[in-house]
This record gives sequence, structure tokens and C-alpha cells, in this order.
Amino acid sequence: MDRPRHQGMVKNTYMRWRLPLVCLLWEVAMIVLFGVFVRFGPEADAHWEEEKRELNLTSDMENDFYFRYPSFQDVHVMIFVGFGFLMTFLKRYGFGAVGFNFLLAAFGIQWALLMQGWFHSFKNGKILIGVENLINADFCVGSVCIAFGAILGKTSPIQLLVMTLFQVTLFSVNEYILLNLLHVKDAGGSMTIHTFGAYFGLTVTRILYRPNLEQSKDKQGSVYHSDLFAMIGTLYLWMYWPSFNSAISEHGDAQHRSAINTYCSLAACVLTTMAFSSMLQKKGKLDMVHIQNATLAGGVAVGTSAEMMLTPYGSLIVGSISGIVSTVGYVYFTPFLESRLHIQDTCGIHNLHAMPGLIGGIVGAITAAAATEDVYGKEGFIKAFDFTGVYQTRTPSVQGGFQAAGIVVSLLMAFVGGAIVGGILKLPIWGDAAAENCFEDEVYWEVPEDEESDVYHMHNPDKPTSP
Amino acid sequence: MDRPRHQGMVKNTYMRWRLPLVCLLWEVAMIVLFGVFVRFGPEADAHWEEEKRELNLTSDMENDFYFRYPSFQDVHVMIFVGFGFLMTFLKRYGFGAVGFNFLLAAFGIQWALLMQGWFHSFKNGKILIGVENLINADFCVGSVCIAFGAILGKTSPIQLLVMTLFQVTLFSVNEYILLNLLHVKDAGGSMTIHTFGAYFGLTVTRILYRPNLEQSKDKQGSVYHSDLFAMIGTLYLWMYWPSFNSAISEHGDAQHRSAINTYCSLAACVLTTMAFSSMLQKKGKLDMVHIQNATLAGGVAVGTSAEMMLTPYGSLIVGSISGIVSTVGYVYFTPFLESRLHIQDTCGIHNLHAMPGLIGGIVGAITAAAATEDVYGKEGFIKAFDFTGVYQTRTPSVQGGFQAAGIVVSLLMAFVGGAIVGGILKLPIWGDAAAENCFEDEVYWEVPEDEESDVYHMHNPDKPTSP
Amino acid sequence: MDRPRHQGMVKNTYMRWRLPLVCLLWEVAMIVLFGVFVRFGPEADAHWEEEKRELNLTSDMENDFYFRYPSFQDVHVMIFVGFGFLMTFLKRYGFGAVGFNFLLAAFGIQWALLMQGWFHSFKNGKILIGVENLINADFCVGSVCIAFGAILGKTSPIQLLVMTLFQVTLFSVNEYILLNLLHVKDAGGSMTIHTFGAYFGLTVTRILYRPNLEQSKDKQGSVYHSDLFAMIGTLYLWMYWPSFNSAISEHGDAQHRSAINTYCSLAACVLTTMAFSSMLQKKGKLDMVHIQNATLAGGVAVGTSAEMMLTPYGSLIVGSISGIVSTVGYVYFTPFLESRLHIQDTCGIHNLHAMPGLIGGIVGAITAAAATEDVYGKEGFIKAFDFTGVYQTRTPSVQGGFQAAGIVVSLLMAFVGGAIVGGILKLPIWGDAAAENCFEDEVYWEVPEDEESDVYHMHNPDKPTSP
Repeated sequence: MDRPRHQGMVKNTYMRWRLPLVCLLWEVAMIVLFGVFVRFGPEADAHWEEEKRELNLTSDMENDFYFRYPSFQDVHVMIFVGFGFLMTFLKRYGFGAVGFNFLLAAFGIQWALLMQGWFHSFKNGKILIGVENLINADFCVGSVCIAFGAILGKTSPIQLLVMTLFQVTLFSVNEYILLNLLHVKDAGGSMTIHTFGAYFGLTVTRILYRPNLEQSKDKQGSVYHSDLFAMIGTLYLWMYWPSFNSAISEHGDAQHRSAINTYCSLAACVLTTMAFSSMLQKKGKLDMVHIQNATLAGGVAVGTSAEMMLTPYGSLIVGSISGIVSTVGYVYFTPFLESRLHIQDTCGIHNLHAMPGLIGGIVGAITAAAATEDVYGKEGFIKAFDFTGVYQTRTPSVQGGFQAAGIVVSLLMAFVGGAIVGGILKLPIWGDAAAENCFEDEVYWEVPEDEESDVYHMHNPDKPTSP
Repeated sequence: MDRPRHQGMVKNTYMRWRLPLVCLLWEVAMIVLFGVFVRFGPEADAHWEEEKRELNLTSDMENDFYFRYPSFQDVHVMIFVGFGFLMTFLKRYGFGAVGFNFLLAAFGIQWALLMQGWFHSFKNGKILIGVENLINADFCVGSVCIAFGAILGKTSPIQLLVMTLFQVTLFSVNEYILLNLLHVKDAGGSMTIHTFGAYFGLTVTRILYRPNLEQSKDKQGSVYHSDLFAMIGTLYLWMYWPSFNSAISEHGDAQHRSAINTYCSLAACVLTTMAFSSMLQKKGKLDMVHIQNATLAGGVAVGTSAEMMLTPYGSLIVGSISGIVSTVGYVYFTPFLESRLHIQDTCGIHNLHAMPGLIGGIVGAITAAAATEDVYGKEGFIKAFDFTGVYQTRTPSVQGGFQAAGIVVSLLMAFVGGAIVGGILKLPIWGDAAAENCFEDEVYWEVPEDEESDVYHMHNPDKPTSP
Repeated sequence: MDRPRHQGMVKNTYMRWRLPLVCLLWEVAMIVLFGVFVRFGPEADAHWEEEKRELNLTSDMENDFYFRYPSFQDVHVMIFVGFGFLMTFLKRYGFGAVGFNFLLAAFGIQWALLMQGWFHSFKNGKILIGVENLINADFCVGSVCIAFGAILGKTSPIQLLVMTLFQVTLFSVNEYILLNLLHVKDAGGSMTIHTFGAYFGLTVTRILYRPNLEQSKDKQGSVYHSDLFAMIGTLYLWMYWPSFNSAISEHGDAQHRSAINTYCSLAACVLTTMAFSSMLQKKGKLDMVHIQNATLAGGVAVGTSAEMMLTPYGSLIVGSISGIVSTVGYVYFTPFLESRLHIQDTCGIHNLHAMPGLIGGIVGAITAAAATEDVYGKEGFIKAFDFTGVYQTRTPSVQGGFQAAGIVVSLLMAFVGGAIVGGILKLPIWGDAAAENCFEDEVYWEVPEDEESDVYHMHNPDKPTSP
């Protein structure tokens, strides 16, 4: 037992100056940049009274706030409680899961407001923000939370902040290419959030491959109550996913439709997940890992198409398939990825986000290509795909092609970006822990000496019991 | 100790083929039926642009989505987190509580969309769904979650799915009789959801009576942290109940009023629950079972009348009484039901849903009978009770009579339906566990070997400790 | 060990008659007062159909319900789950934290509806309530939850109820002075809720000073999972704070702006909190106490100014500073307050609410004083500060002065009120526990004998293990 412990000593995980420095410098930079660039959008500005009259709005209800704020709050819960608690399943990494997710998301949304603002809300030298920008910032950070799932327990908080900085930047570029240059529809972010986020994270964890990770194998499992904490995350993600996919859809029928499609897809996904979880296990018992994760694949997989006329039964089909793919992934692909491709994917984001994200992109391309004026109505057709201006002449099949191109671009951005960022994170200056200290909160957190840990010590007699 | 363990071996709880088969067949059936029947309602369809013009709607805000979606999400949380976590109080049945609730609700909402759709949203051969259908599907499944509370820990997942299938069907029939044939008002479902759901569940658990259940007595209690998990469920039910009771009320004042009445009733209920919890206990200490459950009775008991002019003080009275009835129920009725009537009610749904549901039905009947044009206004009176068309001539006292009839019908449906379904669930093919394995996750779930369970083994030396 | 145990016996913590009596008498009083005074406001009354026509409202959407209900529900969650779970960090006081918070809040909102109603919604002898009253009642009770944080674990439920009764009363008087007499703006309650609530609580805990509290020192810490439960509270407070600060702002741009400012401030606050938490600890590790609490200071500190044109970068600055002040407070001020000033502040509300509340009041005064017609627009300027009627001639700098006066009044009310109420709570009739039984649920709750507590006994061999 001596050597690995010694090995651990060599790695310097001391955060006292590095973490504060990064956080404070960053926050100062944000203040300066916000001061120069960010202002309230017209609907959040006190001049709105005049604006309202000019736009002939008869009611305060026409303020976008009322169309989007409830969905915003649901998305906000998904990012902070959903992702945060989903990752608390590890027996001794609950603080890191919730706490680091909190840190990186709070860090990322500020940068996302700027990056996305420059691309999408820039007017006369200012970024004008409103509730839709807040949702989009949360979305952007969602892709970082996904990537965090792959490297959970193996990185220092500084590495996470560095990754967030770069990933938010790349996300915004990729999103701009898809939404503005390719004119792709992706309201729920199957491509921009899930495909990009997951393959980015998988590439990063591949680069950061740790050959001796089995040294912390005993900490990679869950305990009874940590699995229940994780279910809080799961359920909030599952329940609010209709809000996620509909949050930035067009007002009216599109938002309404997105919620219905997502609701249906997720319901179907639960059943196929349970079926395969039981079927693929020799004793036929259900595995909490699947229930916690694969049940959510249905939300990912209708991310692009939910606002289209996917139809409720179409959603059931997509949800069913994605539940199966995701559960099979946990049983067969994750071990394969680890042993053969050296991709150590702590939370199995390949199963929950990468594959379902691809499914989502493909379903979106097909649904777009299959669109007809008959199904959407003449006006609805134009509105749904925004076939106006230079896109007036685009046909559904061409749109389908561009949607497919969006998948490819997202993958490329993820692989190239992930490789570069992974390389940066490999530098020995970020304070990550040694292999045998992974998945352990004590490295970066003050952990209370509790009864439970007394028991832990009792069963690990080589560790000294505290008085 | 040998015989019962052997007895347990005899019961075949192996789920590997049965559970997947049921889930997958079911999902295929759903896809086919949705494909044949279910389409988007006009407000979720891309043709809405045209519809809007025809209906002379000036704003996207007039889409029902914006009137109901926030309440829908609250109801959704109540069904999945509320009921799910409320039942995690058992020390070793947290996975089953949250997981099976998740399974049966996801299963049930699909079937509810169809059943309720045929009865209420069927037009030209298609079921047209919108956000109100999603709420109603959640409501319907809520009655199954209630019934689940009575049999918690004693049934296999397949039994739960079978029960869900039948109960959703019966719920929809009962709801149709009440709302359409008797023209009864029941927006918060005191009768359709709570009375029906609870007496249905109690009848089922009576039929499934297990004489040797004391063999798993040690598992019927809670541990410290499981009681805290349960409080998550309690609080979300309590906080969102105003949304539950107002979710499908008429737009405007009715929805507003429902929320206020429910808020008041629940607040009063907490105080009387605390009072009686302390008073009925020799040492005067508070009992978490009461706090977790009886505090919610106030929401149940104004389910029918919340949208009526019950008035805030009326709500306080109803809430106060229901808190008392419910707490007294936990202390005196539950043991009585078990010992004398052989009704084993794991969560005490008789106290939380059955009795308060009856109170709710009665209060609704009285409030309706007491309605006057003076109190409601001429238009408000007609709108509140929908006294239009063939019901134009119905008087408040007649309405009160029909409301009362609604209670009786719900009870009859619950008893007869529960008896039949209980009989079906008694068949020895569904894989339920032996008495001494009840309330134990290990039967159907992969359970992590955690420290806590080491302790558990330590105190149960006849069970082998895993290495 | 004998003497303190004996000392404990002397204190009579028996609640059986006292607690029920207080609760039931109170509820009866509420019913009578509600019966005499409280009625539905016009938008929740069935007469609204006629009202709507008179007011020329074209849509049900114009009902205030739709402008405020989603925010109301978020605020509701903050009060019951947010504050309730935030305080579950203590290892053996989870029931008391969640349960007593539940009790006092349910008790308080009824009284708040009356008190605030008399001051603000009284018309022709009746208090007319609507959704805004529900929000305000929750707000008022929020200040009691804050004060509860200071005395957590050291008081009996009856003391809490008595404190709630008085504090709600004083809150309403203070709020009336600020909002109506001084015409101060304070939508998010930096002064009325946080400053008042915190200094009130601190004064109470000073009066109730317990010199021998170190006798229960072992129970003042957390355990691993209790820290995770507390994070549920933290995150819900953090996520929903934008709703808190915007819930009662003017419809339209003000509500929109409040949410954005609060979002920005909170994001910045997380970063500076993490930075200082690591920096101020010798080993550079993060402390969950800071993460759970100081991250929220940013919400408190923009409570007054969020609805003003604070601007996003202004919010970042305020959030950054308040995170630093709050974290520094936990490390240096709390021990100082305890040892020198004999202020035992269990949850550190001085750091989370008192100091950030003062910052919030000051920032609000400055922001108001700096307002110009240029920044707000002519109409927006008048609307934002309600410079109508007798206030038509008030200038921004005068408004700033009145805002500052609001802070002073709130402080005075808190100190004087807290001293009086503290004196009342010191009477030996309320059943509080002896010093060595503080922070222990077993005094007032039936606590399950769980494995964990077996372990606990194992390590405390002088306590008898129950059979």
C-alpha cells in the first residue's frame, strides 16, 4: 500500500492559490466585458413602456418574459439540480458532483452570455440580453455538464474551469455555424448540446486516459443513499425535459408541440429501459445505473425534432429505440470503450448523450426532409423552418441535408476541440489527483468525520480511526 | 429461521423474461394505438397559424399552453418526485418506491392519454391532444400512485403494471360517468382521483392479504435519512398542490381561486396535524409519519370545492378538520384496519387519501348546493358550474345531489374494480415476493454493497457478510 | 457525564399539551379572523366575468394569476424546501430543520395574510386576497425562516411559534413604514426581509445566549449525507432567487429585469465564494458551509435594486462583493460574534442575510439616487419609482435618501423587536431543551432506531443501546 500512496503525494492537489486566482481573475474579466458589452434587451429595459406603444402591444403579457420564464426556471433546475445530483451516485464524490457542477455552470453561464451574445444578440456594439439569452446560456453550459460526466472524479476544479472556458467558446462557434450558416433547426439541442457535448467530453477523457484507475475501483461504486440522491437528479431532468426542448421554440403551437412530443418520448423510454435493464442482467434484476440514465435518452433523442410535426406516435418510437440503445450501451459499450479504446466514461455519457444525440440529429433530419405543406399548413410550414429571406426557396429535402450536415459539423468540432482541450488539460500544472485518490471528495473538500466514515475506517483497518 | 427462507425460495421472483415481455409488448401496443388514434390538438398543430386567424386570436398567449403549462409541470413533479419520494420512507425499499413509481406512471400516462382521449378528446376518429390532456393523464396516474401506496413493498413490478392497466381503464370510465353523465364538478379530483384511487388500492391490498407479514416487520420502519428523503416527496406534494387543484380549472378567476383555497387549506392542515401528532403520543413527541402524510390531507379535502366560492375561511375549516381526521387515522384506524379487517395499508392511504377524499366530495356537494347567483354573479354562476345546454335548468341543490351521487359511484367503482383486479393480481404467475422478503429492494434490484449494509449484516449475523 | 444529563432532566421539554394547545387555539383564531375579514380579491372572485367586461379586458390572460403564479410557486419552494433543507446540514437535527420550518411557515403565512392584508389590501372592511398576497405572505414568513436559522437547534417548537407570531407582526409594521410611509422600493426585500429578519434573529439568539452550548458541540457538525441534503436547499434557493426578486415587481420590463439582474449576481457570487473558501483555508480545500450559504448572498444583495436599471455588470459587481463578504464572515466574523458578543448563530445568518441585506439596501439607495430619465425613459422613470400622486415631485437623490432611511428603520425594528421577543422567549415556560440536548431531534421527535444510530451508540458506549 505504500507506493501508490507515495505516488499520490507526488501529485500536487493544493488549490489554495490556484483556484482563487482563476476564479477571481475570471470574475474581474467578466465584469469588465459585461461593462463594455452587455445591456438589457428592449423587453427588460425601462424604456419598454415607450417601445410597447411603438410596437402597438396592448398587454404586458406580450413581453417575452411570460412566454419563456417558466421554462427557463425548469431548465435552470435541470442544469444545477438535475446534472448536479445525477452525478452524486458515487459513494464518496457527492460534494464534488454537486459542488463542481455548481462552480463550472456558474462560471460558464457568464461566458456563454457573452459568446452567444456576440454571435446572436449584438446590436450597435452592445449585447442586448433577455430571458431567451439566459436559457441559451444554460443550454450552452448544459453541454459542459455533459462533458463533466465523462471525467467526473478524475479532474481538479481548475481543469474543469479551463475546460468550461474552451468548451463554451467552441459550443458558441459550433452553434453559430449550425443555426446561422447552415440554417439548421435544433431547438432542444440534440446536435449542439448533446452530440457536441458528449463527444467533446469523450475525447477529453480519452486524452486524459489514466492507466491505473483500478486503484480507486472501490470508490467507483454507489451506496444505497447515494443512488437515491442521484434519482433526484434523474427525475428532475426527466420531468422538466419537455421544458428544455420547448424553451426556445417559437411562441404558440411550436412550444406546445415540443412539450407533447418530449413527454411522449420520455414515457416510452422508461419502459424500454426497464425492459432491457432486466433482460440484460442474468438475475433479471433492475440496475439503478440504467434507471438513472437511460430513461433520459428519450429526451435527448427528440431534441431536434420535438418542435416539428414528429407526431405523438413518432415520439413513442424514437423514445423506445433510444431507451434500448442507451441501456445496451451501458451493458456492452461502456466496458468496451474502456478496455479497448481507453475511454473512461465515469457517468456513461456515451450512452445517455452521445448515441441518443446522434439519433436525435438523424431523426431531426428525416423529419425535416419529410415535411410537407399539407402537414404543416402553408404558413405553418414557413414558420416552422423559418423559410424566409434567403432561405425562401429551400425545400424540405435540402433542409434535411443541411440538418445532417449539422451532425457532421458538431462531431468534427467535438473531436478536434476535445483533442486540443484534452491536450491542454494534460499539462501537469492543474492539480489533478493521483489515480488512487480519484472519486474521493477528501482531495478538494473538507469532509466531515461522520459515523458512516467511522464504519468505513472500521472495515479498512489500515486507515487510522479518528478518536 | 430456515423454513421461511425456504418458503421464500419457492416464490419465483425472477423477472428476466416476464418484465421485459410485458414492457415491450405494451410499448408496441401503445405505438400502434397512438399511430392509429393520437394527433396534435389544434393548439399544438402547425396549422395553428391559420386557426388563430380564424378564431380572431390576437396573441400567441391565447394558446392554452400558456394558461396551463406551468401548472402541468408542477403536477408532473408531484406524480414523479412527490409520490415517488414520499414512499422512500422505508429503510430498504427506496429503489422500489421511486423506481416502480416511475415505471408505473410512465406506463400509465400513455394508456391514460388513450382512454381519456377516447372519452373526452375524440374528434373525427382521432384523439387530439394538448397540454390539458397531459395534465389529465398525470391526474389519472396519480390515482394509481395512491393505490400503489397501499401495496408498497408487497408486489412485483409486473403486478403493478397489471394493476395500472386496469386501474387507468376504470378511472377513465368512472371519470366519464362523473364528469359527463352526472355533470359533476371535480377539478382537483377529490372523488375521481383520491376517493376512487384510495378505496381501489385498499380493496386490492385486502384481497392480497398476507397473514405472515410480520416476518418482514423489521423492514417496515424507516431510518433517519429515509425519513428525510420522504420529506422531499411530502414538501413537493404540499407546495404544488395549489397547482394540482387549479390545473384544469377554467381560465381566469376559477384557476386563481383554486390556488388560493388550496393554499389556505394546506396551511391550516399542517397546524392541526402537528397538534394531534403530539397530543396522541404519550411522550408528546412528533411523529414523522404524520408530518409526512397528514399535512397533505388539506389538499385532498378541497379537491372538489377549491374552484368554487369556498372562501378562504371555508378552506381553513376544511383543512383543519382533514388534518385531524388524517392524524387520528394513522394512530387508531390503520392498526384497526390491519388487525380486524386484514387491510394492510403500507403508506396509510386510508388516512391521506380515502377519508380526506370523502370529505372533499362531501364539501364539494355542500358548496355546490349552497351556491347562489348573488355569490357568483349571474355569469360567474353559469360559468362555474357550466349550467349551459341541457344543464341550463339545473339548480344548485340538484347539483349538490349529483355531486353526492358522484361519491357513491366512485366508491362502487373502487370496490368492485378493486376486488376484480385484486383477484387477478392474486394469480401465482406475477412473481411477487414471499412475506419475509417484502419491503426489501434486493428482490428486484441490484443493490450496492455499502457500508450501511455491512452494518446491517453485522447486526444480522445469520446473513453472510460479503467479502 | 452524570451532571449535565441530570441538568437536562430538569428542563421540561414535554410538549404533549402545550404544543397542541397553541396550534389549535391559533387555528381557531385564524378561522374566526378569516371569516370576519378575508375574501377573494376581484381577480379570484366569480364576479370577475363582469369585472373583466367593465375593465375592458379582452383576455383571461390579463388576470394577475398568469403574471405571478409561476413565480409564486418558485417562492413557495424556496420557503419550504429551500430554507427547510438548507438547515438539514446538522447531523441529528434534520427532522427539526425541515419539520419546524414547515410548522412555523404554515403558521406564519396565515397570520401574514391578515397582517399584510390589513395594511395593504383592506377595502370596505374586507381583506381582498389574490396571488400577490400569497407571495407577500411567503416573503414575510421568509424573514422568520431566516431568524430561525440563528436559533436552529436551541429552541422548542412553541418558542418558534411565539417568535413567528411576533415577528410577522413586526415585519408587517416595518414593511408598511417602508413601502407606504417612506415610499421605498424593495421588491426583493433586502431591507424588509433580509436585514430585518437577520438582525431580528441575531438579537433573539443574543438574548437567549446559552453559556454551556459546547456540551452539544459534537452535534453541531454535519455528516456526509446531511451536507448533501443541505445542498438541495441551497440549490433551490439559488435557482429560484430570480423568481423571488421579480415576483412582485411591476408587470413587464421590471419583472424581466429583476430576473436578469439576480441571475447575473448569483452567478458571480458562486465564483468569489469558491475563491475565498479555498483561499481562507490553510489546506486550500473547499468548505461545504460556504458553498451552502455564501453562494446565495448575491441574491440577497440585489434584492432592492434588481428591478432597477442596475445593469448586468452592476449585478456582477454586487454579487462578487457579497460572496466575498459572506465567506469572510463565516471564517472570521461568526467565531468573533460567538466568543466576544455571545451571539450564537447556528446557520451563520449574519453572513448570508444580515451583511448582504445591508449591502442590498445600500446598493438600492445608490441605484435609486443615480437614476435618470435618460436611463429609464420618461415614462419608465415614473413607473419604476412610482413617482405619482404626492410623490410626483420626488427626485432620485431624495428617493436615495429615503431608501437609506429604510435600512435604518429596519435595523431599529429588528433590534428593538428582537430584544423584546427574545425576552419573552426567555421565560421558562416554553419547553426548550438543556444545553447538552440541543441540536438533537430526539427531544421533540420520534426518531427511528436505525443502523446509523446503532453505530452511533457503538461509538458512544455510555449510551444504552436499545434492544
